[in-house]
Amino acid sequence: MKNLWEISTTEFAGGKESLMRRGNVYQLANGYMGYRGTLDEFGPDESVGITLAGIFDRVGSAWREPVNAPNGGFTRVSLDGTDLSVLSGKVAQHRQTLSFSPAVFERETVFSLRAKTLTIRSSRFLSADTPNLGVIEFSVYCDKAANVTIRTGIDCNIWDLNGPHLLQLAAEKQGEVLLVQGLTSENSKRVLVAEVIDLNFGVEAHESKDDRTLRVISWRAEAGKIYTFHKYFAVVTDNDLVGKPIQSAAVKMVLRAKALGYAVCLKKHRAEWAKKWERCDVEIEGDDEAQLALRYSIFQLLMVAPVAGSANSIPARALSGQVYKGAIFWDTEMFMFPFFLHTYPEKAVELMRYRIKTLDGARRKAQTEGPGYRGAFYAWESQETGDDACTYFNIGDPFTGRDLRTHFRDKQVHISGDVAIALWEYFKLTGDDSLLLEGGAEVILECARFYYSYAYFKKEKGRYEILDVIGPDEYHECVNNNAFTSMVAKETFVIANAAVEHLRKKHPAALRALVKKIGISRELADFREAARLLYVPAPDPKTGVIEQFDGYLKLREATVEELKAKMVHPNEYLGAGQGLAVPTKVIKQADVVMMLNLFKTRYSAKIKQANWKYYEPRTEHGSSLSACAYALVAAEFGDLEFAYKYFLKTAKIDLEAKYKVYVGTVFMGGSHPAANGGAWMTAVLGFGGVQADEKRVVINPRLCAKWKTFQFNLAYKGDGFRIKITENSVTITSPTTNVRRHKILVAGSKTVCAPGASVTVKYRPTKH
Amino acid sequence: MKNLWEISTTEFAGGKESLMRRGNVYQLANGYMGYRGTLDEFGPDESVGITLAGIFDRVGSAWREPVNAPNGGFTRVSLDGTDLSVLSGKVAQHRQTLSFSPAVFERETVFSLRAKTLTIRSSRFLSADTPNLGVIEFSVYCDKAANVTIRTGIDCNIWDLNGPHLLQLAAEKQGEVLLVQGLTSENSKRVLVAEVIDLNFGVEAHESKDDRTLRVISWRAEAGKIYTFHKYFAVVTDNDLVGKPIQSAAVKMVLRAKALGYAVCLKKHRAEWAKKWERCDVEIEGDDEAQLALRYSIFQLLMVAPVAGSANSIPARALSGQVYKGAIFWDTEMFMFPFFLHTYPEKAVELMRYRIKTLDGARRKAQTEGPGYRGAFYAWESQETGDDACTYFNIGDPFTGRDLRTHFRDKQVHISGDVAIALWEYFKLTGDDSLLLEGGAEVILECARFYYSYAYFKKEKGRYEILDVIGPDEYHECVNNNAFTSMVAKETFVIANAAVEHLRKKHPAALRALVKKIGISRELADFREAARLLYVPAPDPKTGVIEQFDGYLKLREATVEELKAKMVHPNEYLGAGQGLAVPTKVIKQADVVMMLNLFKTRYSAKIKQANWKYYEPRTEHGSSLSACAYALVAAEFGDLEFAYKYFLKTAKIDLEAKYKVYVGTVFMGGSHPAANGGAWMTAVLGFGGVQADEKRVVINPRLCAKWKTFQFNLAYKGDGFRIKITENSVTITSPTTNVRRHKILVAGSKTVCAPGASVTVKYRPTKH
Repeated sequence: MKNLWEISTTEFAGGKESLMRRGNVYQLANGYMGYRGTLDEFGPDESVGITLAGIFDRVGSAWREPVNAPNGGFTRVSLDGTDLSVLSGKVAQHRQTLSFSPAVFERETVFSLRAKTLTIRSSRFLSADTPNLGVIEFSVYCDKAANVTIRTGIDCNIWDLNGPHLLQLAAEKQGEVLLVQGLTSENSKRVLVAEVIDLNFGVEAHESKDDRTLRVISWRAEAGKIYTFHKYFAVVTDNDLVGKPIQSAAVKMVLRAKALGYAVCLKKHRAEWAKKWERCDVEIEGDDEAQLALRYSIFQLLMVAPVAGSANSIPARALSGQVYKGAIFWDTEMFMFPFFLHTYPEKAVELMRYRIKTLDGARRKAQTEGPGYRGAFYAWESQETGDDACTYFNIGDPFTGRDLRTHFRDKQVHISGDVAIALWEYFKLTGDDSLLLEGGAEVILECARFYYSYAYFKKEKGRYEILDVIGPDEYHECVNNNAFTSMVAKETFVIANAAVEHLRKKHPAALRALVKKIGISRELADFREAARLLYVPAPDPKTGVIEQFDGYLKLREATVEELKAKMVHPNEYLGAGQGLAVPTKVIKQADVVMMLNLFKTRYSAKIKQANWKYYEPRTEHGSSLSACAYALVAAEFGDLEFAYKYFLKTAKIDLEAKYKVYVGTVFMGGSHPAANGGAWMTAVLGFGGVQADEKRVVINPRLCAKWKTFQFNLAYKGDGFRIKITENSVTITSPTTNVRRHKILVAGSKTVCAPGASVTVKYRPTKH
Repeated sequence: MKNLWEISTTEFAGGKESLMRRGNVYQLANGYMGYRGTLDEFGPDESVGITLAGIFDRVGSAWREPVNAPNGGFTRVSLDGTDLSVLSGKVAQHRQTLSFSPAVFERETVFSLRAKTLTIRSSRFLSADTPNLGVIEFSVYCDKAANVTIRTGIDCNIWDLNGPHLLQLAAEKQGEVLLVQGLTSENSKRVLVAEVIDLNFGVEAHESKDDRTLRVISWRAEAGKIYTFHKYFAVVTDNDLVGKPIQSAAVKMVLRAKALGYAVCLKKHRAEWAKKWERCDVEIEGDDEAQLALRYSIFQLLMVAPVAGSANSIPARALSGQVYKGAIFWDTEMFMFPFFLHTYPEKAVELMRYRIKTLDGARRKAQTEGPGYRGAFYAWESQETGDDACTYFNIGDPFTGRDLRTHFRDKQVHISGDVAIALWEYFKLTGDDSLLLEGGAEVILECARFYYSYAYFKKEKGRYEILDVIGPDEYHECVNNNAFTSMVAKETFVIANAAVEHLRKKHPAALRALVKKIGISRELADFREAARLLYVPAPDPKTGVIEQFDGYLKLREATVEELKAKMVHPNEYLGAGQGLAVPTKVIKQADVVMMLNLFKTRYSAKIKQANWKYYEPRTEHGSSLSACAYALVAAEFGDLEFAYKYFLKTAKIDLEAKYKVYVGTVFMGGSHPAANGGAWMTAVLGFGGVQADEKRVVINPRLCAKWKTFQFNLAYKGDGFRIKITENSVTITSPTTNVRRHKILVAGSKTVCAPGASVTVKYRPTKH
């Protein structure tokens, strides 16, 4: 039987691009940093990367991006004077494995050289217990006696997209610890790597060469004997210990790890991962392909979830490198957040704290971006300060070699509402209003204030309108009354009013303080009016179709294939005002359908189906965010075949790594945590039919035929449930640790789940 | 002394483009049709064109354009069996002349062939008395006896840009008259050419060959004898005599002309032209260059002024061909109309009747163009129905070979206000409200209605805003609060309110009928509010600069030269959303400065100067409309040197014909009546300092140093004046035919001019 808790491969070569893709698939991460799935002996040419969360740097006028740390995991072996690498062609055998529980990367390679075979086995993890820490077990075994040299230490040759970010890189040795420190180019933040090993064979010398600071261990290896050592490295930056002596902290950290030893470190790591999986695993019986892909997706999300207390978020390409500027997009709130909210709310909190932390950046953006904008206009591409990393010219034009003016930064205003909606969802589903009090309510009010300053009133029609925006479909810029954006803005006003009401009742002093702090008292009546009078395009009474924006239905009909056939350059962009899609109905990704999914309780299945059928054939799915939105809505109105196809497509994106890695000359390769979140959503919210609000949880299963059982957990108002769905039953188990009884509506039947109880409800599956 | 009433040249060859340019410079027109300044023997390869006013046609999906008629003026001579043409290289001497009074084109060419010289002399005019008629005197003289053949008749080889427009072309002979008739491709409108000659030598045979229907006159010419015949051709279309027998009308017309004879036809033509010049000439003593250029400009305008009762207007390239779709732009109201209004109001009426005639087209455009637009949205490129000939993709992209999406058609909304302003100016300066009653008021109210439906209200700021437009500077599309557009829209509301007030007082029944007809009673209060609350960007209190649109001042600084240096294709367009000018402050043409000129009484000289100095260095002057706007404002604040330079540049555009004739692959060559009008405005309104409104005429002379005297006429409230300006005096002469006494403010002195009186006012010239 296939092990559905790991992936492995025997491939090891294939050129730079294959190495890069494999590095994505096999990456490790622990929220603090990512370590690409490369091999011990690799360097920057093979896209080794230890990408740090929440620390960014800019060199000159190049894109600002996250900082990669020097590689404290570097080890290279030589056999009888010949350096060994899988890329040097002496490989007899190779296998590498990524285990999900715990997150461990292993490799075993047999090198064959001059009638001797030498086997390298290494195993590494980024500690889930101590975020700064990486731990490696490294073994060498030779079938014949041989002179073996191991070079291990810190490699300062860093793979950067727009670097070098670390200046004044200096290495030193402090006792047995190797240390490298650099300063970021823009803000002179210290980034420090410490490394120590335990060694019980050979002689250790030291070498500083080619920007590596290395231990050189040479010895005469006996035939058939396994030589093992352990390596502990820590990355510490000024973000961790502002103004503190980070060097001694790093030294302490690796020495402590060494003192504990590999086994204990692994045990602690394993314990953390056991907790994660206990809460977040989803089990699918009857469909190994879906099981593996979904579990891998969840695994990716768990690895990159921010460290507790960091107030970091998850970038669009996670921690797989510096791609997309390491920036946080709407992807996080709309595609990743639901997974955490429903299974791991502590991480959902962290994601929201990131938006609270960056509120001032959003305020700055509003002030500088438009005439008279007020409140919080969140960055389209957000880094640690919340200032926008998105440029006004964000895409290269292959025809002129110039950058195209895009309006992602200035017109994709739905981002602020996406944040407000996520904040409010957190409150609704957890019942926890502490986040509102610690800044969440301020964020919500400032987002509403932004939309009020952005909206215009149309007197003749007695309504507010949101004009001149880009919706999720980025091929049509600067449109009016985009259904998605307007609905998000309207909801922001509704949420702002509800938040004020909640605080008024429960925390009147906090409300008074907040209203005073941001001077918003006179505007609250405006928000109430806007919540009533903001216009959102409605379904056509005859066809049920919601026009994506004013004038969309008058655009030219075209198919994606037709447009692709007209392309005269393979990398030409279809949008940006003059692209091939602009005058047509072809859209980049789910837009109206995304809205129908986000506000699913407000539209009937019939309306959903009508819009799905209208828009799907016109959608390029040019974004990894598109397929899951269509899958979710298809599941709702019962096209399970389509839903399943797009679910698998979404769930396998990172596993198969067949995505495009270059757009124009810009490297875009990396992992897709939004698709990972989309896969979970499609499974649990789509096929599981879970829909929760502040009043109750609803489960309307729509199981794929091949899924015999489907099990997952749900967190709700501080409690949790285990849900098991079969083709005709739903069993809900409330652990004894639950505090309250909860109402759950299963396929129309009202059910009450008391702590410690297990309830099974039969249902009649809908015919497909 | 140079004759300042004609132009002439001895050039005759120079390739296709030179022929085309010369054809523009030497063209004739009489409002009904234009006849390009080509030679008798030329055909379509030499850009012969008889372009008709007000009749348009479309072939397939090509641009809709005016119809060119078959050439009834064709004549070719052969000497001893050899066909003669200036292009065949036997030319000993050539001269062609265009006389302004009357409008007559003459050519004299001496051909030298096998030791004989043959001289052709021809003289032609398009009758100013009988608009359908063309008349030619043609003479041949040979120094030695020779066999001469003349082929004369109708050439159906038509130069078309997007033709062929005339289908089923059929020739016949009816008595002595040659006839050709064709049907337009789109609407099957008949276009008919009749031709007759008087001949007193040779033998006439007939020939139909190569799409020509010709008379062949062969004879033995005696040495030294001049042989002369006259040719009368008429063009008649279904537009002239709807559903009537146009053939007999055409036959009658040419036979009547023949019966009158050449001399009488010319006399009537001359008499008409004498009246035109009597009213419209401007005399400049001391500056022949300016005199000739300005007179030529006025001549162009007089030639293309619409025929009385036609309700036609003047296309942007007049009647010089089919260029620019023969369409009427804002050019007419903003740049040509003032000339007619101030000197020849009957023609100004005709221009306005054209807008009244096309009101339904403007209504259709409003209904189809946007969601909820109402009222009249005039066509950016208007033809006979008022439907918009402007395409959404109006400029070719040399990089991709595709057409670029431009928003000229859908966002250049100032056009409606330009029309309303012209209508109201007519009423103000003539005191004649008949135009308001015959549809003008309806146009004004429908334009106001359009702007009301276009405007949004910004509650926080308590103001209406006009969003998402293109101002005169077409490089910056889809901008908000463009000063020019907003001011024009606001003025439209002011005018609508004033028009309603006027009708209420003077024609209450007409007002009631109109309000009922268009159901506008409830909206009149909205118009009053909008006139008060519509936002127009104001001068910055410190710098005096008016921001061209929201965000303009934040754009990147650049010079025109800098942009040109960055061009990678000579025909690349600088606008259309991705052009080089878009992210910069470089503008195509006067925009804020155009507004300051249009609303000149509302801004101080200081504000004008501040904006002029700010915007002029950032202006490409990529339109022939730009230089005169800058010249006019420069004259106002006293930079006469600059004003003069740009005046001359404007006045000489068509005379020198050095303009660009291709934009991308699109042929754009033709005359520039807007610049002609701009030249007149700069002279009379700029240097003459004339400014008239409903209360009085103001004259603040700012004469160029070299102009000793400057004389022109002004029409005002049904009366007229002759104005003579010297360096320190203004003499105003009221003819005895004037009906009223008029107040005129000359350089600050109140003057009253009674009929028959002449008043001289001294003034102190401002120092420059």
